[in-house]
Amino acid sequence: MMIDKSSKILIVGLGLIGGSYAMALTKKGYMVFAITKEQDDIDYAIENGIICSGSTDVDIELVSGADIIVFALYPHIFVDWMEKYGKYISPGTLITDVTGVKGAVIDKVNALVPQGVEFIAAHPMAGKEVYGVKNADSSIFSDANFIVVPTRDNTPSAIEKCKELGEILGFRRISYLNPKQHDEMIAFLSQLTHCIAVSLMCANGDPNLVSYTGDSFRDLTRIANINEEMWSELFLLNKQALLYEMDCYRTCFDRLYNAINEDDEQTLKSMMRLSTARRKMFGKEKDKK
Amino acid sequence: MMIDKSSKILIVGLGLIGGSYAMALTKKGYMVFAITKEQDDIDYAIENGIICSGSTDVDIELVSGADIIVFALYPHIFVDWMEKYGKYISPGTLITDVTGVKGAVIDKVNALVPQGVEFIAAHPMAGKEVYGVKNADSSIFSDANFIVVPTRDNTPSAIEKCKELGEILGFRRISYLNPKQHDEMIAFLSQLTHCIAVSLMCANGDPNLVSYTGDSFRDLTRIANINEEMWSELFLLNKQALLYEMDCYRTCFDRLYNAINEDDEQTLKSMMRLSTARRKMFGKEKDKK
Repeated sequence: MMIDKSSKILIVGLGLIGGSYAMALTKKGYMVFAITKEQDDIDYAIENGIICSGSTDVDIELVSGADIIVFALYPHIFVDWMEKYGKYISPGTLITDVTGVKGAVIDKVNALVPQGVEFIAAHPMAGKEVYGVKNADSSIFSDANFIVVPTRDNTPSAIEKCKELGEILGFRRISYLNPKQHDEMIAFLSQLTHCIAVSLMCANGDPNLVSYTGDSFRDLTRIANINEEMWSELFLLNKQALLYEMDCYRTCFDRLYNAINEDDEQTLKSMMRLSTARRKMFGKEKDKK
Repeated sequence: MMIDKSSKILIVGLGLIGGSYAMALTKKGYMVFAITKEQDDIDYAIENGIICSGSTDVDIELVSGADIIVFALYPHIFVDWMEKYGKYISPGTLITDVTGVKGAVIDKVNALVPQGVEFIAAHPMAGKEVYGVKNADSSIFSDANFIVVPTRDNTPSAIEKCKELGEILGFRRISYLNPKQHDEMIAFLSQLTHCIAVSLMCANGDPNLVSYTGDSFRDLTRIANINEEMWSELFLLNKQALLYEMDCYRTCFDRLYNAINEDDEQTLKSMMRLSTARRKMFGKEKDKK
């Protein structure tokens, strides 16, 4: 193990993901510290054994004493933080993040990383539709993917260490993508699905609909309960890839629309067959009923 | 109770829904018979205590002896059946169905119903992504909506009896809609969601995606595993209402697309806030995590 139990791990941003990281690492016997905005969150995390200690100030000792720092912040706050406090990070420290877009973040952060410090991006593909450390739950990682997003500048040992972090956190599967691949994948699998759910909820305001809703509508719109601050930032930071995926999807939607409009049963059926065949690849383990 | 235990209930079409009706009614102590295409399905249903007896022929005695007949067939097969065999249904019999569109079915069937027989449409909003009586499962009704779809021609006693059938089957909620309301509601809540899931699956064929998929994509595409014979028929039978809902949805999707394209954060956030507020109405009882 490259990350031994004497490692001091600092979480910056004790929200749902930062808090769940802290909880998982503490359970595994690591020393976890936190810096976050609200004293209430620090108090809660200490009382509940999620962290050893923490601070609402950017405590220079905590920052310079850390072996690993995990930034669990919105992208622009992460970049601002690095601008102001990056200089306090000690040489030899590994820093990583949890942000949902990579291309737009990695270059900015790398420009702010002090000599001897290495940044390696990672994306824990896990979450809940609730926020804050009080909802922290280390079990959300056990069925999820952890993606390490190295660039050409990352060293093999940093890549290995980041992978090990994913293992310690308990992710089911760990994989590697470069920033461009990551952002294209996330545009399709995550951002486009959120665009669809939001559009669907906006399309009809009839309050009586809830009486008739079945599982399919509920499943499709679970993610329509969305944090607008975070997601609008993520969408705009990945604009090019997202617009491309939205275009591809709309082309298919329009093809289906036209097939229905023209009573073109053959096109309808062939799209449904393709859809069924592809969906089977995604397995059943998460399906209900 | 208007449906007493001496009632003979005939299910025509022993698939997933017909089989689940039979199972639920038999469990409650009713005498259930079936007519279906495959002898294998009749044998399975008898051996597993799902029905008393059944036939692959249209057994005139079974048809004329039934007090209630439930048609669990594709819409066009239901209409064909009524054309050929409707005349054997005895006066006083109540007939009902389970089809997913109503306007296009009700008029055709009413024209074929013999004197003294009453047809009242119903839509059990329950299902699974598997087929056939061998997957029958009466528990699928317990968290689902049962919609009675009367017309002006239906008598109060038939409406009451159909509601009672929904209660016996164990539906969580029973409601009433006229055919037009039903078809508009189903166009939005069910058909549009299937169109979205199919379009999304058709939009990207990268087989590597499965390694990175999170819950949101799986939830959104669960229904992309779709029976193309049934759904293409349902879509085309409800064409006008479905195209209208597809238009409304596409307008919202385009608004979101343009907001992203133009870095219009205010529009993005206001759509997300609307989406979040509306989604809250749909409750949490079915949400995971």
